[in-house]
Amino acid sequence: MRLYDFAPAPSPRRVRIFLAEKGIEIPTEQVNLREREQFDDAFLGLNPLGFVPVLELDDGTHICESVAICRYFETLQPDPPLMGQDPTEQALVEMWNRRMELDGFLAVVEALRNAHPAFADRALPGLTNHPQIPELAERGRKRIDIFFSVLEEILEGRPYVAGDHFSIADITALVTVDFARRVDMQLPDTLEHTHRWYQRVSERPSARA
Amino acid sequence: MRLYDFAPAPSPRRVRIFLAEKGIEIPTEQVNLREREQFDDAFLGLNPLGFVPVLELDDGTHICESVAICRYFETLQPDPPLMGQDPTEQALVEMWNRRMELDGFLAVVEALRNAHPAFADRALPGLTNHPQIPELAERGRKRIDIFFSVLEEILEGRPYVAGDHFSIADITALVTVDFARRVDMQLPDTLEHTHRWYQRVSERPSARA
Repeated sequence: MRLYDFAPAPSPRRVRIFLAEKGIEIPTEQVNLREREQFDDAFLGLNPLGFVPVLELDDGTHICESVAICRYFETLQPDPPLMGQDPTEQALVEMWNRRMELDGFLAVVEALRNAHPAFADRALPGLTNHPQIPELAERGRKRIDIFFSVLEEILEGRPYVAGDHFSIADITALVTVDFARRVDMQLPDTLEHTHRWYQRVSERPSARA
Repeated sequence: MRLYDFAPAPSPRRVRIFLAEKGIEIPTEQVNLREREQFDDAFLGLNPLGFVPVLELDDGTHICESVAICRYFETLQPDPPLMGQDPTEQALVEMWNRRMELDGFLAVVEALRNAHPAFADRALPGLTNHPQIPELAERGRKRIDIFFSVLEEILEGRPYVAGDHFSIADITALVTVDFARRVDMQLPDTLEHTHRWYQRVSERPSARA
């Protein structure tokens, strides 16, 4: 088993934190996205879309998509549970993880890729070139602001994003808050509950993954 | 238990097909999106984001997000399995379902909401108004074309999107292909394998849900 990874990229970090919480160690191989190694033929043979992370199983199966890789490990080793324990909790964790991703993580992707010169003509990840859309970068920044205030509403009522327990939804939210620094956006000082949550989850040893 | 639904909308259809495949019947309540009933105070009390579908449990819990609702029923009644059976299959179904959604379903949302007059100033679902971005509608259409050809590559090699068995990934893909008609896009005639798959999944009784 092996994880194709790129240390500075936010998506593989979601998987690395998840594995650290589970206490699972597996070999990793770095795919340098800055050198465009994800578009080398060898890597495209593993993932034709040219994304990391990719988990390679011993039977040669390749699992792409951060959350799908996390799901694999959750089923294989349910302890500690990071995706909920009973049907209701599992559904709520999935719901909140998706909201963190669709409203938070993807908003940062939008803001970054439609503005930063490093992504000229690569406004979407993957093999097809798409030109940057400046209004979309602008919209992404607005959505990050909204995302931060939604986080505050959530965390005013409970210690973790999906309820009483740390879950994959916290991992996605933490990675998103850190990722937003790439577009020079930070949690506003006024968001007390979110700052307290951020400190708590950042202090977990897994956050260094 | 009750499902807040809107018959013509594609997201709740994903849940309805999933339930029909499981043979589960639950009461539904229509929230007329054309009349903006999702923004009525009563409904925002259930889902502050103003989306359907929402599943209301007997204990008053509300689960939003189509896939989270499907996950709830999959855990509650695993048979027939629609989200994979062993860890590898579960991860692969999750991966393909996400690709169908991120590259297909969301591309149609992008193409529709950034061009259709009914969504003026509502280019994203939810409470915040966002102006339409014509280049994004254009990009959405390009992405739908790419999505169709990716489907063909997938279905050339296997009977269903995620492998040998019908799964939630087929449901998302079917709903996406039908949803694309809303922006006047259809599967090109040349995509033989996709057409055969489409006919097969459309003939399942669940497709009428």
